Amino acid sequence: MALSRKFHIALATSLGAALCSASAADLPVRPSASDLIKTSQPSDWRPLNPENTLYMELPAGRVVIELAPEFAPQNVANIKTLVREHYFDGLAILRSQDNYVAQWGDPNAETQPKSLGSAKAKVAGEFSVPMANDKHFVRQKDFDGYAPQIGHSNGFPVGRDPKSKTTWLAHCYGMVGVGRDNDTDSGNGAELYAVTGHAPRHLDRNITVVGRVIAGMPLLTTLTRGSEAMGFYGGKDARTPITSVRFESEVPEAERSHLEVMRSEAPIYQSILEAQRNRGGPWNKYAANYLELCNAMIPVRERPKQ
Amino acid sequence: MALSRKFHIALATSLGAALCSASAADLPVRPSASDLIKTSQPSDWRPLNPENTLYMELPAGRVVIELAPEFAPQNVANIKTLVREHYFDGLAILRSQDNYVAQWGDPNAETQPKSLGSAKAKVAGEFSVPMANDKHFVRQKDFDGYAPQIGHSNGFPVGRDPKSKTTWLAHCYGMVGVGRDNDTDSGNGAELYAVTGHAPRHLDRNITVVGRVIAGMPLLTTLTRGSEAMGFYGGKDARTPITSVRFESEVPEAERSHLEVMRSEAPIYQSILEAQRNRGGPWNKYAANYLELCNAMIPVRERPKQ
Repeated sequence: MALSRKFHIALATSLGAALCSASAADLPVRPSASDLIKTSQPSDWRPLNPENTLYMELPAGRVVIELAPEFAPQNVANIKTLVREHYFDGLAILRSQDNYVAQWGDPNAETQPKSLGSAKAKVAGEFSVPMANDKHFVRQKDFDGYAPQIGHSNGFPVGRDPKSKTTWLAHCYGMVGVGRDNDTDSGNGAELYAVTGHAPRHLDRNITVVGRVIAGMPLLTTLTRGSEAMGFYGGKDARTPITSVRFESEVPEAERSHLEVMRSEAPIYQSILEAQRNRGGPWNKYAANYLELCNAMIPVRERPKQ
Repeated sequence: MALSRKFHIALATSLGAALCSASAADLPVRPSASDLIKTSQPSDWRPLNPENTLYMELPAGRVVIELAPEFAPQNVANIKTLVREHYFDGLAILRSQDNYVAQWGDPNAETQPKSLGSAKAKVAGEFSVPMANDKHFVRQKDFDGYAPQIGHSNGFPVGRDPKSKTTWLAHCYGMVGVGRDNDTDSGNGAELYAVTGHAPRHLDRNITVVGRVIAGMPLLTTLTRGSEAMGFYGGKDARTPITSVRFESEVPEAERSHLEVMRSEAPIYQSILEAQRNRGGPWNKYAANYLELCNAMIPVRERPKQ
């Protein structure tokens, strides 16, 4: 029994670059982002640093998170302490709010909190950091309403303000941040969230972002939504337990995910952005000549066998 | 066992309006979108037209879709014919692609297609329509990269171009469109999709959008992702069947969902947009002074008992 694909809508990444035109004329066929990725060279990709890569093991599979210490050095250091001491093992997903976030941590944090071990209980918020922290920024030319400038830094979507000389990770789909209460130093990385819906960019510069989920997003996006306010799970909900969170470096080579991320500095990455900014025919009839920051694909793939 | 909410991140709609400021000073506390909704009057809301409201019944519950015939008169008319003749009953969800769409229709469309009855097999694409079709447009002042102007029309997010005098529904989260092949008239409404991820606005003006899911989105967003290309379900996947699709008008009063949508023309709606554009303290430390079209909440609620 074959699948109907007759009336499909095309994959976001299967279409090519074209002229900007509001006319009804067919757009020229151009290489798509996926086509371009196929032409990439090994040097267009970088390996993950196993000390900045976390494996969150859930019963249904593995979520891989790449940390970005340059954008939140103190918060990432505290998270690393928690991971090193296996703090997250046996904790749970606490919240799944539709079109917003999945959030995880200690279900008993308010009654009988698990010890944070040698991690700090309070870490200053790192809502933005000096631009000098970021050596890899490549600007994206499109207008953005939430930041004076946008771009990518080695696989992370970034906003920045040349006036205040600050930079920050943008709340795109899959980005991971540090839950906090009203005080800016009330977070410590023991409770984290990942964006599972349309990018809530108003959170930018309001909370510390520490990294990005680079594999396993469906494990977080398909979680049953919590029945309580803001998607928190309540007594009647079955929470998903966290089996463990480990550094990639702790995991035997044979059990690793072996992912690599496209270098945003590679010229091919600019071509991929352009291929998404102006898609070509035959499916597309209108090219937007614009690419919103959080619609820019940041390619991740399994490292090809050598 | 109480839930930890100590280190929460605040609900998108729980925060208020404030001054635009990049400084670290606390923002003044202002009413949030949710606070404002509580002050709304019955006249700020409109009932649904039971002839433009579809109930898609899935085994796990009901998805409510509001059709927008003014933005796609021919396609909506064909969908109504299909619904009237119970075409969708017993069909299935065909595709769930993470951060993109869920799509439904006839699993056997390519081998032994179900008869379309008196519906048309081909309907001209209505990727944009004359601005004159839309009597309810209220402009949103924020810049948009995908459309010269943006706004809302009675509960639908809209782009428009005063130069070509055209308007179209924008591909925000929850919007419903008509799958098609390469030819612009290759869709007919027998295969539909809903946006389940970050808004794929490059689809705007490339495909016919017919309405919006106004209740039941989690039933579509939490579907297991399909294992084949583009998230299509394959032979090994368990597809979710569609029990039935009915007009609200066909369903007995006692079994209806009784929803109402905020009128975008009501002055309170502009206040709600502003409350999301510039959120206030104490949680927020930075107000964006910007609201991206697809981040604008369009309130839907159960009709209060009289």
